[in-house]
Amino acid sequence: MALYQEMSKEELLALKNELDIQYKEYQAKGLTLDMSRGKPSAEQLDISMGMMDVLNSNSDLTCEDGTDCRNYGVLDGISEAKELLADMIEVHPDNIIIYGNSSLNVMYDTISRSMTHGVMGNTPWCKLDKVKFLCPVPGYDRHFAITEYFGIEMINVPMTPEGPDMDMVERLVAEDDAIKGIWCVPKYSNPQGITYSDETVRRFARLKPAAKDFRIYWDNAYGVHHLYDHDQDYLIEIIAECKRAGNPDMVYKFCSTSKISFPGSGVAAVAASPNNLVDIKKQLKIQTIGHDKVNQLRHVRFYKDIHGMIEHMRLHANILRPKFELVLNILDQELGDCGIGSWTRPKGGYFISFDAMEGCAKAIVAKAKKAGVVMTPAGATYPYGKDPMDSNIRIAPTYPPISELEVAAKLFALCVKLVSVEKILESK
Amino acid sequence: MALYQEMSKEELLALKNELDIQYKEYQAKGLTLDMSRGKPSAEQLDISMGMMDVLNSNSDLTCEDGTDCRNYGVLDGISEAKELLADMIEVHPDNIIIYGNSSLNVMYDTISRSMTHGVMGNTPWCKLDKVKFLCPVPGYDRHFAITEYFGIEMINVPMTPEGPDMDMVERLVAEDDAIKGIWCVPKYSNPQGITYSDETVRRFARLKPAAKDFRIYWDNAYGVHHLYDHDQDYLIEIIAECKRAGNPDMVYKFCSTSKISFPGSGVAAVAASPNNLVDIKKQLKIQTIGHDKVNQLRHVRFYKDIHGMIEHMRLHANILRPKFELVLNILDQELGDCGIGSWTRPKGGYFISFDAMEGCAKAIVAKAKKAGVVMTPAGATYPYGKDPMDSNIRIAPTYPPISELEVAAKLFALCVKLVSVEKILESK
Repeated sequence: MALYQEMSKEELLALKNELDIQYKEYQAKGLTLDMSRGKPSAEQLDISMGMMDVLNSNSDLTCEDGTDCRNYGVLDGISEAKELLADMIEVHPDNIIIYGNSSLNVMYDTISRSMTHGVMGNTPWCKLDKVKFLCPVPGYDRHFAITEYFGIEMINVPMTPEGPDMDMVERLVAEDDAIKGIWCVPKYSNPQGITYSDETVRRFARLKPAAKDFRIYWDNAYGVHHLYDHDQDYLIEIIAECKRAGNPDMVYKFCSTSKISFPGSGVAAVAASPNNLVDIKKQLKIQTIGHDKVNQLRHVRFYKDIHGMIEHMRLHANILRPKFELVLNILDQELGDCGIGSWTRPKGGYFISFDAMEGCAKAIVAKAKKAGVVMTPAGATYPYGKDPMDSNIRIAPTYPPISELEVAAKLFALCVKLVSVEKILESK
Repeated sequence: MALYQEMSKEELLALKNELDIQYKEYQAKGLTLDMSRGKPSAEQLDISMGMMDVLNSNSDLTCEDGTDCRNYGVLDGISEAKELLADMIEVHPDNIIIYGNSSLNVMYDTISRSMTHGVMGNTPWCKLDKVKFLCPVPGYDRHFAITEYFGIEMINVPMTPEGPDMDMVERLVAEDDAIKGIWCVPKYSNPQGITYSDETVRRFARLKPAAKDFRIYWDNAYGVHHLYDHDQDYLIEIIAECKRAGNPDMVYKFCSTSKISFPGSGVAAVAASPNNLVDIKKQLKIQTIGHDKVNQLRHVRFYKDIHGMIEHMRLHANILRPKFELVLNILDQELGDCGIGSWTRPKGGYFISFDAMEGCAKAIVAKAKKAGVVMTPAGATYPYGKDPMDSNIRIAPTYPPISELEVAAKLFALCVKLVSVEKILESK
């Protein structure tokens, strides 16, 4: 196969005819496939079913410290759950608060609290004329939805293979005290699967923001979500790095077991400096008497410790690895020599990021949909749903069974070809 | 025993001597008893342990509509949980949203959303100079803590045996558009155990508030928490009554299974009109992908239906009834003829409300504490912790075992006598 850009008009028209025929064959199949969201597959959920057995009516639901997990109390989580999740995100158990079932909810509540009560004594954001957030792009649509919901202006920061463009981040936070935060998925990022380099994390920890209440919103969603046993990305732990850099209060770190145990029935947490935790708890004690301790205990009794959790993640990896490899192989085979797109090769996480030729993403997603394959909407990886290049598409290979995934990925590649040929023909 | 007020100074001094001796005897026992918070006892928690068995690793965690409860999704709760909780609070399942583990958290989030985004298109409260809430007193401290946290001015409304003083409520909400809500625990109220009369509920539904975004915050915490099989209070269902009165959008109704299954590991919900639910979901979909569906399913599989839940509540009642009767008997015996206090005789809920002579509550609670019995802090049942009469004390008889409760209640009565004698002597 040749580079599409170098083909003659006649060659392109012939190719288009051929691709049209293939596309119609797919359409005739009446597919209903989904590569749109980062959900575990049923097979992955099955490996956590043992969690349903660890507590039964004969179990002692008492914590190590004597707390009866069945009753009210314990605002910030039971000690053993703090230890497990602290190990999971490489912080001290004293630096953590255990929440309910969703880290997204914790992030929402964090922004909401900052709006109404401010951050560590600073002016509540709702009293300010303007609040801005930096948004590395492409990024996670649900992050952007939170800041959009609160009327926070979002500024795109391009991602590089090392993480966000730190020259731009450093300059913007230093010059504008309306910038109160930056959304980060620092490990196996959504959607590229990029892990921030050591240099990037060090520069983050050494930021000199104009706003005292600037915080790094470090969504460590995929901290232990490796695809390989040895070929793993390493991320410098940000809380310790910020402390070493003299900026101990500059980061909130979020995590959950959503893609470890059960999405929606897991345990979420935030980690931060002691000053931040005091600030958070002032609000948390008004909001709740405590989160679900029985579920915390269930998780601890199932995984036992961080080693148990890591072993469990290996089972996930065994299911996910072939799916990622399948999609990457299809992209390589189908699109490798065409010059009409590029994509990432993550070693963990839940996504592959695909960049089509400029102006093609929406058309590709629409074409896939017409043939029965749902992708994440084009633009979703950008604030306000607006990809200025109309180029990025998030591929989520985790949910469909492998047989369906193969069909979906091949159809996707076909749609990329078809839309690209049409685009190139327009300019001929 | 005679009315204390009619005793001579000499009689009072003699009595005081006698009471002082009794008090010292209690102090010598080194008690550590707790009648402070509305927590179920361990015995009550035991009756729900079967819930730990309804799901195991062989269970099919699929809902009736095919939803896999183990995965992401379903913003407003699984259908079968909606049905169960709707039956519990006497609304249609379409009028309900299932939340996480805590109705307090739902109430907090409701106020927080109103601050940042307003209610059904009205101005966000954080943009207003002044927001006020009506607070029937005595009432629930955690309600008042939420409104205080958000800087909302709280106005005391006296409770009567029929519910809040409705003349005052009607007048205030009609004349002041800064009044945006009223906190209500309409059935077996905290702390009096009063159930609002039919007339009171009808007047609530027919309020003519000046503020379009005025809402009744109807915390139906003890809807099925009866002490007796037949001698039960009945409360008119407020959502239907508001609809009949032409005010369908005027109420949010909150509930949870905290004192049915496990506090902190139950399921909470809000019920409201369709318009309100649309408004709430606009925010909820930004805040979370969904709450814990596995726990929702666990509750449904355990109780099966509302009849199963009501049977379960009978088991709670069997444990709670003797505790309430014990405390009431002790109060009758010890204080019945003294004229130094009055108390409620609830048929359900978690509390007994005690009104001491004016200016005595703090001293009574302090005296009990010095002898090892912790009561809810005096004043806690009032906004800002300020009981203008220093009279009300909340008694929580549910948590201690019955043997401890007997000692605690007797000591409490003794402290009431002692402080009252001292008070009367001051004026002689």
